[in-house]
Amino acid sequence: MTSILIRGGTVVNADRAFRADVLTQGGRIAAVGEALEAPAGALVVDAGGQYVMPGGIDPHTHMQLPFMGTVTMDDFFSGTAAGLAGGTTSIIDFVIPAPQQSLMDAYQTWRGWAEKSAADYGFHVAVTWWDESVRRDMGTLVQHEGVNSFKHFMAYKNAIMCDDETLVNSFRRCLELGAMPTVHAENGELVFMLQKEIAAQGITGPEGHPLSRPPMVEAEAANRAIAIADVLNVPIYVVHVSCVEALEAIARARARGQRVYGEVLAGHLVVDDSVYRHPDFATAAAHVMSPPFRPKANQEFLWRGLQAGNLHTTATDHCTFCAAQKAAGKDDFAKIPNGCGGVEERLAVVWDAGVNTGRLTPSEFVAVTSANTAKLFNIYPQKGSVSVGADADLVVWDPEGTKTLSAKTQHSKGDFNIFEGRTVRGIPSHTLSQGELVFVQGDLRAVQGKGRYIKRPAFGANFAAAKLRAETLAPSPVVRA
Amino acid sequence: MTSILIRGGTVVNADRAFRADVLTQGGRIAAVGEALEAPAGALVVDAGGQYVMPGGIDPHTHMQLPFMGTVTMDDFFSGTAAGLAGGTTSIIDFVIPAPQQSLMDAYQTWRGWAEKSAADYGFHVAVTWWDESVRRDMGTLVQHEGVNSFKHFMAYKNAIMCDDETLVNSFRRCLELGAMPTVHAENGELVFMLQKEIAAQGITGPEGHPLSRPPMVEAEAANRAIAIADVLNVPIYVVHVSCVEALEAIARARARGQRVYGEVLAGHLVVDDSVYRHPDFATAAAHVMSPPFRPKANQEFLWRGLQAGNLHTTATDHCTFCAAQKAAGKDDFAKIPNGCGGVEERLAVVWDAGVNTGRLTPSEFVAVTSANTAKLFNIYPQKGSVSVGADADLVVWDPEGTKTLSAKTQHSKGDFNIFEGRTVRGIPSHTLSQGELVFVQGDLRAVQGKGRYIKRPAFGANFAAAKLRAETLAPSPVVRA
Amino acid sequence: MTSILIRGGTVVNADRAFRADVLTQGGRIAAVGEALEAPAGALVVDAGGQYVMPGGIDPHTHMQLPFMGTVTMDDFFSGTAAGLAGGTTSIIDFVIPAPQQSLMDAYQTWRGWAEKSAADYGFHVAVTWWDESVRRDMGTLVQHEGVNSFKHFMAYKNAIMCDDETLVNSFRRCLELGAMPTVHAENGELVFMLQKEIAAQGITGPEGHPLSRPPMVEAEAANRAIAIADVLNVPIYVVHVSCVEALEAIARARARGQRVYGEVLAGHLVVDDSVYRHPDFATAAAHVMSPPFRPKANQEFLWRGLQAGNLHTTATDHCTFCAAQKAAGKDDFAKIPNGCGGVEERLAVVWDAGVNTGRLTPSEFVAVTSANTAKLFNIYPQKGSVSVGADADLVVWDPEGTKTLSAKTQHSKGDFNIFEGRTVRGIPSHTLSQGELVFVQGDLRAVQGKGRYIKRPAFGANFAAAKLRAETLAPSPVVRA
Amino acid sequence: MTSILIRGGTVVNADRAFRADVLTQGGRIAAVGEALEAPAGALVVDAGGQYVMPGGIDPHTHMQLPFMGTVTMDDFFSGTAAGLAGGTTSIIDFVIPAPQQSLMDAYQTWRGWAEKSAADYGFHVAVTWWDESVRRDMGTLVQHEGVNSFKHFMAYKNAIMCDDETLVNSFRRCLELGAMPTVHAENGELVFMLQKEIAAQGITGPEGHPLSRPPMVEAEAANRAIAIADVLNVPIYVVHVSCVEALEAIARARARGQRVYGEVLAGHLVVDDSVYRHPDFATAAAHVMSPPFRPKANQEFLWRGLQAGNLHTTATDHCTFCAAQKAAGKDDFAKIPNGCGGVEERLAVVWDAGVNTGRLTPSEFVAVTSANTAKLFNIYPQKGSVSVGADADLVVWDPEGTKTLSAKTQHSKGDFNIFEGRTVRGIPSHTLSQGELVFVQGDLRAVQGKGRYIKRPAFGANFAAAKLRAETLAPSPVVRA
Repeated sequence: MTSILIRGGTVVNADRAFRADVLTQGGRIAAVGEALEAPAGALVVDAGGQYVMPGGIDPHTHMQLPFMGTVTMDDFFSGTAAGLAGGTTSIIDFVIPAPQQSLMDAYQTWRGWAEKSAADYGFHVAVTWWDESVRRDMGTLVQHEGVNSFKHFMAYKNAIMCDDETLVNSFRRCLELGAMPTVHAENGELVFMLQKEIAAQGITGPEGHPLSRPPMVEAEAANRAIAIADVLNVPIYVVHVSCVEALEAIARARARGQRVYGEVLAGHLVVDDSVYRHPDFATAAAHVMSPPFRPKANQEFLWRGLQAGNLHTTATDHCTFCAAQKAAGKDDFAKIPNGCGGVEERLAVVWDAGVNTGRLTPSEFVAVTSANTAKLFNIYPQKGSVSVGADADLVVWDPEGTKTLSAKTQHSKGDFNIFEGRTVRGIPSHTLSQGELVFVQGDLRAVQGKGRYIKRPAFGANFAAAKLRAETLAPSPVVRA
Repeated sequence: MTSILIRGGTVVNADRAFRADVLTQGGRIAAVGEALEAPAGALVVDAGGQYVMPGGIDPHTHMQLPFMGTVTMDDFFSGTAAGLAGGTTSIIDFVIPAPQQSLMDAYQTWRGWAEKSAADYGFHVAVTWWDESVRRDMGTLVQHEGVNSFKHFMAYKNAIMCDDETLVNSFRRCLELGAMPTVHAENGELVFMLQKEIAAQGITGPEGHPLSRPPMVEAEAANRAIAIADVLNVPIYVVHVSCVEALEAIARARARGQRVYGEVLAGHLVVDDSVYRHPDFATAAAHVMSPPFRPKANQEFLWRGLQAGNLHTTATDHCTFCAAQKAAGKDDFAKIPNGCGGVEERLAVVWDAGVNTGRLTPSEFVAVTSANTAKLFNIYPQKGSVSVGADADLVVWDPEGTKTLSAKTQHSKGDFNIFEGRTVRGIPSHTLSQGELVFVQGDLRAVQGKGRYIKRPAFGANFAAAKLRAETLAPSPVVRA
Repeated sequence: MTSILIRGGTVVNADRAFRADVLTQGGRIAAVGEALEAPAGALVVDAGGQYVMPGGIDPHTHMQLPFMGTVTMDDFFSGTAAGLAGGTTSIIDFVIPAPQQSLMDAYQTWRGWAEKSAADYGFHVAVTWWDESVRRDMGTLVQHEGVNSFKHFMAYKNAIMCDDETLVNSFRRCLELGAMPTVHAENGELVFMLQKEIAAQGITGPEGHPLSRPPMVEAEAANRAIAIADVLNVPIYVVHVSCVEALEAIARARARGQRVYGEVLAGHLVVDDSVYRHPDFATAAAHVMSPPFRPKANQEFLWRGLQAGNLHTTATDHCTFCAAQKAAGKDDFAKIPNGCGGVEERLAVVWDAGVNTGRLTPSEFVAVTSANTAKLFNIYPQKGSVSVGADADLVVWDPEGTKTLSAKTQHSKGDFNIFEGRTVRGIPSHTLSQGELVFVQGDLRAVQGKGRYIKRPAFGANFAAAKLRAETLAPSPVVRA
Repeated sequence: MTSILIRGGTVVNADRAFRADVLTQGGRIAAVGEALEAPAGALVVDAGGQYVMPGGIDPHTHMQLPFMGTVTMDDFFSGTAAGLAGGTTSIIDFVIPAPQQSLMDAYQTWRGWAEKSAADYGFHVAVTWWDESVRRDMGTLVQHEGVNSFKHFMAYKNAIMCDDETLVNSFRRCLELGAMPTVHAENGELVFMLQKEIAAQGITGPEGHPLSRPPMVEAEAANRAIAIADVLNVPIYVVHVSCVEALEAIARARARGQRVYGEVLAGHLVVDDSVYRHPDFATAAAHVMSPPFRPKANQEFLWRGLQAGNLHTTATDHCTFCAAQKAAGKDDFAKIPNGCGGVEERLAVVWDAGVNTGRLTPSEFVAVTSANTAKLFNIYPQKGSVSVGADADLVVWDPEGTKTLSAKTQHSKGDFNIFEGRTVRGIPSHTLSQGELVFVQGDLRAVQGKGRYIKRPAFGANFAAAKLRAETLAPSPVVRA
């Protein structure tokens, strides 16, 4: 394994930025310091005028996902490779058992699919139903398989939706196991009813999609999941927060002292709901995902959420379908497969719209694209940090480099790009994965099967505090004659 | 029917207070003005130094309720008579069908029980399950029976609890019918789980009751019901708001421009949760109701809610069980019949703790004890107003009169008084119902069967505005090639 | 004086709407009821299909104001006449003493100017400086002259701006006198600095005006005035709330139980800040007023504030300057005389954008255009109510009548109309002032000098409650050895 | 200089905790890693079962302060030595020029006093008046003296209080210089008036102190300073936030995306306002500081503020006066010298009440006691971090050690301890300053004059972002004919 010396850059970690060289060896970072010597045989990367940052971690992707009767375009190889091209060196994908399917079976299936990954990966496992076997399998996954987070869909009625009974049981189990519950927050009963109502009004096109999932549908579910977590005293992570009302549910809970964390997608930060009224069906349909893109005013609030520390991570929900697949909903927006891409563009979009505008400092950028995810899902500082001993997953970032994002030039297999035509300033010049150069000045060198499954230990820092707090609050019986 | 002239008092309406005499005739108010002449044969009541106000309306009582295996102590006669003794001249009680029971059957049963009432009354009807017959019966009740409000219990799992599917369907139907949906806001799944957990910790006494229903359990449900109403564009009324977190859910929605209304119980305004740790089981159990009494700090917020206009009505949830009945939960707090009294004490408690402290003006007192309920449930100004043509349901209020509240002296049949020992300043000297003196200086003259069922028309003022707003917001399809 | 019978309409008061005829006699309302008989000689107005409402009260006008080196176009006659044409039958204008000028002298000057008024009027008196004579004159004005409100400008440094010392002293004095303190909330120090900075950036046109007075400048001052009132336990009224941040300061205070009231201008409800970037200087300058028009998103929040009860009154700050006057600021936006019209259009604009959209019910419209002002400034029900004994200041409102607002057709003397080109549905067909028809189907019959000065008594309902609350909160000394 | 090896402990940094040894050399940290070898001659400290953390930084002390006619008990030696005994290895004190006094003169005076310090130190410089020389001296202090923060007292009228004009000018200057403005937030006009009113009510004892400075007095000033900073686009730091209302002003601003930071004192986290009604004058007076201790309910909110990230640092405002000094206010609470101690107890109090209860994780403890201060005042990672190259200012923390805090055993010179009698679990076993053991198992080895003045560079990370944001927001003139 080659040693690489990244020379002359500014290292950016979540806590600070400083001038330093970075040396990798054996897939890890061997040194960080000024004027490092290149060992014999080491490759030297000139990072002058550039930033050296931990590679991005995308905590929310769906590669090779069977969904709504089809399968996403990107498999684990093409999807992770696209990530590497954009500076993202790890993903956390989702195992989604069908109702009544064994969690362990589903987990093994997904592990198999993921073997072709080009970058490191992990899995959140969805809890889509409940019985004693689910409770038991959650334990096995945490204790033996390095899973430390479980996902709950509050929407998709008659499919993978959790009811409150399952939420309560599963969150309770997460607390016992030291695993983070996460939620897709949308009230599935309301969506179900609104889809029917909107269809009854004669609206069948993609413009019906956001009408069937208004912000309050998301805010309600976010508030509910957070309240359940509060009562059970378990931390919680809300995926793809898209609107100010859901953000406020998180901010309120945090102000109460609750350990609540929020994720926002690069798409929701810069794309608005006008796309659904595009006269071209394919364009409008290509943007169908849930929660939908929102009125533009929400974007500023989401940025503020990141800056204020009420949102903690950025992700993509990368889940690509091509025009032919989207056409399944030609006559009924409710049948359009839900999903959009982004794993390749996230870092550049967040940098351009976030750092270049003064909304985020470079360190805050690292926090929300990499370090916070590593901390919350307990793989820090192996991931998310430029420090000695950490995995050599790095991105060398050229703050003056520009690129116009487009489906034509993307590495992802989809035929659409929700950021089409957007010119960003700030792009990766080099990406390192496990100490290897996998992307160099536009040249992608991803290797199928090179990615490793990363086990994530349970009982992150939040959990010890939650346990102490629960003990402090424990009630006592009253002695009566 | 006698004519009565109330002379020399200060009339207090929700909009203002002014010196005037009041003359009744034929059960209605015939004149309001200065220096009125007493017609021949008229009784004259001297109201010098006193206030003349519309009789209280209690929008939340349960007389003669079969619940948790027993029946409340007060029937419709004793309960309404107790109300008259305290200045309350109307109640709105609840028809509560068992799951699968026909709404019309239940309604007829309750109408029968209520025939013995001494004061005027109406009914909210609970929706405890859902099918096509329920939808149809809701229509019949609104269009033919003068019911304009439906109740939804979000707690009491495996009994009368509504799930979200029923909530969505019923709220939708309410909108069509111009009827107000109301909710008992507690998350029943959480209560169910907490009851088991607390029992497992060895806590079986009444102190377990509030632990099984913490404020966030209420706040979550309130927020959920309000969000559903918002999405459906229907007004909503939240009964017995007991804690700051639920109040804030209402305030947030109102700040969004939503037509949300909140009720608070006299008990929650002045009694706190220390009662559940009383060493005497009977005393602790006598306070078991849901939502439970709360930590004292909540009370100030509830008062502020009334003053700020985020809470609109005061009620009692009058639902009395005696010590022998409460003993059913001797070994398991979850089996203690839920309910407390108050129909007789509400006005005095709210006056003493509200008006005497400067929290409320006398007009605000009338608003929150009478006029607002009449407006929201569309029987204003027949009820809730001292004005010509209104029903002569009046209370002459002595602001200097004092009384020490006690089970020993109450007219209600219960053997307990949650306000025991509280001395109030401000009590009724006379109560008139339908133009008759039914309470005179401590002498209760209630007549069984004198009370009338009051039909309440649908489509109150809120509904026309809701309809216009829905039309304004109506989406349009996109024309595509 | 003629008696008038308004027949066949729907009377709208703040508490309800109902079918009734209205009879006036001797300048007052003599009867409200169904099928009234017309007395001999009475005029009959056919109000079929129309609403009969209390005439509007505009609590914020500046007629004949000397300001920024010039005098407004409308004097008390033309201004009040324009109001009558739009259904507004009373105004409350402002006496604004120069610093060091005696309050009594200024008051007498304004009383003189106002004698030509066509409609009833009153005065808020501004406190622009402080010494013992100011304190004394405040007492005289309240106790002998029927002034029950004082205005404080927190902006206009080096002119009429109050510093915190004056605010504290004057609010304290208001509490003693039972008079309402009101504030123009903008931080004058920030405005002063920003005006200089923006000029230094080379921005001299009207587009600099909103940049020099951003929303936070208003929100800060509103919050400060409210906090001072809270500490002193005095009610407070914030004039022309224009942005969500100031509204939230009010809502927060109300949620704390404070007696805070907010006014919003018709202009701020429907006009946005894009006007300041109009390429025509005269058009842009014509919109210069303070606080400025705001980004459009604020409008929805202001409407919600009215509906939720966090804003209470609508006004205009009617203060008209013609193009020649506005040209004084041709080279420096800070020299453009501040002020816009609206006294004639307010009711139609609020109805069209408020009632026709379902934001407000007709009763809520009456509350925010008339009744609430009458209550807060203690002239209710003489004004603000359609009831027997009230002044016969009435508007017959045709909900289907339409009109396109324009400077060309307005009665106000200004040469500009901020609502130019807006077509409204809902306009007055008749206006009555003191029982006389002063506007009939477009025909304005205003009579110079017919308006009366209306004394407003101190110690409205809020003040007794504030006094009780202060006593309840009174601290006690500690006994120490 | 000795090398020290701290062996067997768990290193706690703000971002994570991990098992590692720590080696110091030449006053700095030379290595952090597993199983480090002790160099020849190195001292070995056994940290088994203990935490190794960056020494505390107290960003708010007043050593040797001349104030209210006297001088604090602790000088820079005794005060910093007391800090070392408690694990605090740096302080930031305050230079407070008298009005009209040159900032540079005052700065030099304080630098002289501080030469005897036993631990490293820096200075915030107060801006107590304004003219061109103040503006110039601010520049000199930043550019040549390593001052990067300026303090503004919004209270203490007729003494060191800033008015809004000075605030605006100074904040503007801070932005130019890249220096952090900080504020003592209390509305001095209200305090001035309330002190007189309370005295007029006959309240002269210490119980009058909190009555003269209610929470809204603090909240108003905090909101005002934050609003000014927002308008000027400069970051801001609010010292000693003591009540929920001020905390909410910060949280609101942060939710708007503003870079606002809050400090809370150890005292405000655990001591409540009942102390002022203590029957012993000396005890009550010993607690007189501003802002005062608050009703107990505030404490939980302050802890939540720390956990949620709305408060960032903990401090003490260490400013000790003895009973004889406090007696100056025997007959007038307004004359009691304001100030309390705490520099020695802060870490133990925050650990015991914060970490032991699950409110804070150990890493969060390090953040709020050390790292965040270092970051905000731009001396990170020299201070606030256990990492190679950082100053060897360390505390070895025994989580099972206990101690009962008391004036009798404290190292501070005061004769009072606001934490008297509180038994804490979690105390320092060793403190290292500049790589020397200065506190070992209760043995304090502080050396007078060993402390160094630490220069703090301007333009911390916040400022680059603020500059970019300001440029993004910059308005453009309109081109008109």
